[in-house]
Amino acid sequence: MGSCRVAVVGAAGYAGEELVRILSRHPGISLALLTSRMHQGERAGEVISGLPDAVGGLVFEEPELPRLCEADVIFLALPHGAASDYVIPLREKGKIVVDLSADFRLRNPRHYEADYGWSHPAPALLSGAVYALPELHRDEIRRADLLAVPGCYPTSILLALYPALAADWLREEDIVASSLSGTSGAGRRPEVALLFSEMSENARPYGVPRHRHVAEMEQELDRLARRKVGLAFIPHLIPLARGMLSTIVCPLRAGIGAEEAHAHYVSLYQGDAFVRVLPLGTLPAVRDVVRTNRADIAVQCDEARARMLLFCAIDNLGKGAAGQAVQGMNLRLGLPEDEGLLR
Amino acid sequence: MGSCRVAVVGAAGYAGEELVRILSRHPGISLALLTSRMHQGERAGEVISGLPDAVGGLVFEEPELPRLCEADVIFLALPHGAASDYVIPLREKGKIVVDLSADFRLRNPRHYEADYGWSHPAPALLSGAVYALPELHRDEIRRADLLAVPGCYPTSILLALYPALAADWLREEDIVASSLSGTSGAGRRPEVALLFSEMSENARPYGVPRHRHVAEMEQELDRLARRKVGLAFIPHLIPLARGMLSTIVCPLRAGIGAEEAHAHYVSLYQGDAFVRVLPLGTLPAVRDVVRTNRADIAVQCDEARARMLLFCAIDNLGKGAAGQAVQGMNLRLGLPEDEGLLR
Amino acid sequence: MGSCRVAVVGAAGYAGEELVRILSRHPGISLALLTSRMHQGERAGEVISGLPDAVGGLVFEEPELPRLCEADVIFLALPHGAASDYVIPLREKGKIVVDLSADFRLRNPRHYEADYGWSHPAPALLSGAVYALPELHRDEIRRADLLAVPGCYPTSILLALYPALAADWLREEDIVASSLSGTSGAGRRPEVALLFSEMSENARPYGVPRHRHVAEMEQELDRLARRKVGLAFIPHLIPLARGMLSTIVCPLRAGIGAEEAHAHYVSLYQGDAFVRVLPLGTLPAVRDVVRTNRADIAVQCDEARARMLLFCAIDNLGKGAAGQAVQGMNLRLGLPEDEGLLR
Amino acid sequence: MGSCRVAVVGAAGYAGEELVRILSRHPGISLALLTSRMHQGERAGEVISGLPDAVGGLVFEEPELPRLCEADVIFLALPHGAASDYVIPLREKGKIVVDLSADFRLRNPRHYEADYGWSHPAPALLSGAVYALPELHRDEIRRADLLAVPGCYPTSILLALYPALAADWLREEDIVASSLSGTSGAGRRPEVALLFSEMSENARPYGVPRHRHVAEMEQELDRLARRKVGLAFIPHLIPLARGMLSTIVCPLRAGIGAEEAHAHYVSLYQGDAFVRVLPLGTLPAVRDVVRTNRADIAVQCDEARARMLLFCAIDNLGKGAAGQAVQGMNLRLGLPEDEGLLR
Repeated sequence: MGSCRVAVVGAAGYAGEELVRILSRHPGISLALLTSRMHQGERAGEVISGLPDAVGGLVFEEPELPRLCEADVIFLALPHGAASDYVIPLREKGKIVVDLSADFRLRNPRHYEADYGWSHPAPALLSGAVYALPELHRDEIRRADLLAVPGCYPTSILLALYPALAADWLREEDIVASSLSGTSGAGRRPEVALLFSEMSENARPYGVPRHRHVAEMEQELDRLARRKVGLAFIPHLIPLARGMLSTIVCPLRAGIGAEEAHAHYVSLYQGDAFVRVLPLGTLPAVRDVVRTNRADIAVQCDEARARMLLFCAIDNLGKGAAGQAVQGMNLRLGLPEDEGLLR
Repeated sequence: MGSCRVAVVGAAGYAGEELVRILSRHPGISLALLTSRMHQGERAGEVISGLPDAVGGLVFEEPELPRLCEADVIFLALPHGAASDYVIPLREKGKIVVDLSADFRLRNPRHYEADYGWSHPAPALLSGAVYALPELHRDEIRRADLLAVPGCYPTSILLALYPALAADWLREEDIVASSLSGTSGAGRRPEVALLFSEMSENARPYGVPRHRHVAEMEQELDRLARRKVGLAFIPHLIPLARGMLSTIVCPLRAGIGAEEAHAHYVSLYQGDAFVRVLPLGTLPAVRDVVRTNRADIAVQCDEARARMLLFCAIDNLGKGAAGQAVQGMNLRLGLPEDEGLLR
Repeated sequence: MGSCRVAVVGAAGYAGEELVRILSRHPGISLALLTSRMHQGERAGEVISGLPDAVGGLVFEEPELPRLCEADVIFLALPHGAASDYVIPLREKGKIVVDLSADFRLRNPRHYEADYGWSHPAPALLSGAVYALPELHRDEIRRADLLAVPGCYPTSILLALYPALAADWLREEDIVASSLSGTSGAGRRPEVALLFSEMSENARPYGVPRHRHVAEMEQELDRLARRKVGLAFIPHLIPLARGMLSTIVCPLRAGIGAEEAHAHYVSLYQGDAFVRVLPLGTLPAVRDVVRTNRADIAVQCDEARARMLLFCAIDNLGKGAAGQAVQGMNLRLGLPEDEGLLR
Repeated sequence: MGSCRVAVVGAAGYAGEELVRILSRHPGISLALLTSRMHQGERAGEVISGLPDAVGGLVFEEPELPRLCEADVIFLALPHGAASDYVIPLREKGKIVVDLSADFRLRNPRHYEADYGWSHPAPALLSGAVYALPELHRDEIRRADLLAVPGCYPTSILLALYPALAADWLREEDIVASSLSGTSGAGRRPEVALLFSEMSENARPYGVPRHRHVAEMEQELDRLARRKVGLAFIPHLIPLARGMLSTIVCPLRAGIGAEEAHAHYVSLYQGDAFVRVLPLGTLPAVRDVVRTNRADIAVQCDEARARMLLFCAIDNLGKGAAGQAVQGMNLRLGLPEDEGLLR
């Protein structure tokens, strides 16, 4: 194991346990500390399946600051609003923090307040945080000490739209994104609507007209488009534990041919290990990306109607959470970007 | 609608809402009152799908005694231990009570205490209660005012074993029953282990060595066998919202041929509208019985090894709960036994 | 049972068996004949669950014309392209034909050829066929002898768009419809991609850029809008056996308030037994409509961005196929429109 | 990569692709050749998800003998009966063959004929084959050149019974094993009964009274017990793509305490990396072992009734097929037994 010591706070939630699984096989770091209020005192191997012995033997601790400060990198896999309690003191101690919550994704604290319903708890730290989507912000991630890991929906939608926006092809006031999410996106919390008895043979939209993830999508889309983007975003819950599929339709500014569009996507993502632009004419499936850190993207042009169709499949817990967090850590630590991650 | 007025207490749980669905189309009664603490004040049609307008317009009320007493028959679809609060006063008022909980299934209150962990709240009422499995106790049900609707596991296992025990074929000290249950059997309660995220692509045994339903199975099996039966019962939770399958293996006392056994089953269940003995060589499937009140039973003999194999599929919310409760009510009210019920 | 004799051709497919289930409980007709090449000679009750005895005892026959002509109404639940062989001779004999395939949905036979890949087999019959969506064509259905039952996707999308198009609110060149379908929509045919092993924990788009159902949607949308509508339609297959959910986004021509829009929907569908416009602020779920003939519709306006969001859930085998076919038959026979159908 | 060259024949079936996934990350060998008749000419990375680039770039070939002979170890993941065509010539060339089919599991060719319906195609090779369940036959595997990888059901049942039989605790004429299997156990073949539309919300027994796997279980059980074992085995298909759970009940010869039994299991499996005896009082779940090579075993004693209850969960494609095959190869090649395998 490497010499960089890593801690995971909230290690028994869905994103947390996936982080532990990935980090337990990561050759470049040493997993030193796992915390879980609910499972405190239990061995990780009894709670999380598929761990090697060395990590399985770690005992979940209470998340206490002095212990956390023994680590060099601290991952926070906590509910929105709960991360700041750790981020502030950990940053004061000079630690690298990788936060999987939404707390540091929005540069403008007023946007945070609008969508989350409470004032931002640490606005002074926002300027030092980076929106840690490596395909868009690789260089900033390398220099940042507070990585705000993007949400799963934004990851799938931003990766799909980025090349088209960069090429200025879209009438970006009319983007429609419809996403399908696995139930693990709602976290490991007991709620009747998330029971197997309710979700088997079911499917339903939710979170309209304005899901909390819209703000971070708009922040990044506006930046990419260099103007105000008009996004209609409709998330759906389907009978899937894990995975995400986003389908995006947008009118084209001018006639772009399918092959031209596809070539541009391939070229732009050429150096990105975790984005696979599918061959023209094929479409992604959730199954192909689950348990990987990959995003599978398909691009199609309906030339007759001047519309672009984009599809992106990711694992909501992989590229949409834990995998992307580790990818960000790799960049920050100067490790190979794909170390410990599956494509 | 008929003139008998019916109330359902706990009408928004899984068994409760299925009761409402069935009763809403039952020509022989009038559904007069629905209660639900959680959904009090809401219209039934907004909470329960598939209701005709007349019933969909009923508003869930608090379960208060004076209102309940306006009904002639009261169904109780409440957690174990909670039914007695209603049963005692309702019986005093001379009402017919159909209780879907376990509270009045065991004749011996000490057995209740052993498995449920608290003293029986109304032992005096036990002698007036009937174990309301129509195929075994039809005549008693016709005369009883307190119907204790059997559990779903016992229903599937007793129906499968009854003919073999009646014929005294089994070495009944070695019965092994393995059952698969849908998650709705655990009720509409928020619990992490019952989340879609946990149960999709999962399966697990639970409740061994002694599930609470064993006591009622033993009570009835001992009676049928006229001696002590030795039952090993292993329930499993599988990724199924609704349905139940029980598989039973038992050594035979003497060589019984498959055709003889099958003919006996067919003959014994000839008059039972809701038991279908499958043709020799075919096996039941959960899908065939879900949303019906039917039990599909298969019987096989492994003659070389002198063993009988029995299979029984039911809908855990139908024949295993709400359907069977209505079947019992039909008998008690002198209505056709299958009125309002699907086979 | 009523005196009108009914036959179902292709009664063992998913839509066919649902037809048989519905018709078996329909008080206004008599189910006289079931055909299935694959199950010929078997009793219906052994193949289709949940049938009453009278219908369960029917034996599947070969689909032969003289026998079919003994019926007054013939339902055809056959693959696209196979229906014409029956429609032509049955219409010559003056029979009422309810066809669940796509063969008679398109008025223009060239559109059929473009999407299905072969010349229309009976163009002369097209003028006598009605696109049997009762909410749009009730009066024509009452007079027609050849009912072309709409596809499931078009049913869900047309019902959602109809009031908005009728009010001329939409910039209808930019309608985006994203639909989620259960796997039964693909029929009961052995295909690796439809295996449980492939679809569990999976989800995928398909059929872009032009699914076969687009032609019938455009035919009806153009008629409703009285101009050319530009529809982007993206169907998805999700881990659901049965059900359908369509989500539609469209820019508004002018600012329409959510309450105004909702009131218009409620008013327009007031007399339609099978369309439920949900209360403002609530969204449909597949589970609520499965095994009913109902469409649950939600309407939302994103006033800030001048966009309308529409949602429609149906049972793809119910309102999307068999239920709607029976609704059409009811109209044609002068029976109550909802006879034998659940809401 | 190591210097031992490995080929996989039938690499696009469920067991085959899992083999490729595991071998693609195995540091001790070099994956040199993949064959698939159906996907011939396609790149592995387009058919199998989650492969590293080096392996994803391999192109599926026709399974031709000269090419296969360039490998040192050949895995055969073919339907029963098809393996011999390769085994005979490959063994003649001195190659190590790891066969995942049933063709070389039974020492007595008459047993093969009885259960598979055709004469054994290569009886002369049987004596050189080893039943490659490492926990029972580790030393023989180290010396054998033809490894017959056990079936998934036998793996789960033999591992659960082995310590109890070794201790001679069971009245082994009355063992009852009930197993739940994911649908991938039936292979990637198009069959209506395996469709998502059929298996969602379903469960059904099959393969009674005598599933093909019984012969290999009896062969090994008789050997362990040193007398004739009487096994009742009932497999069930449940709505699970991947995974297996076996539940076994057996009368005890004498009173064994739960703690004594548990201690014996722990002690006997102490050196086995892939068997985890769960703490007394806990039960296995399929989810914990899927995508690992582990078997999770629970042991319980119902002392009052002198019965032992055993539970074993495995991944039917992992420890039940591909993982176990790689474990066998590791032993044969003198590599660490757990190389490339997850626990």
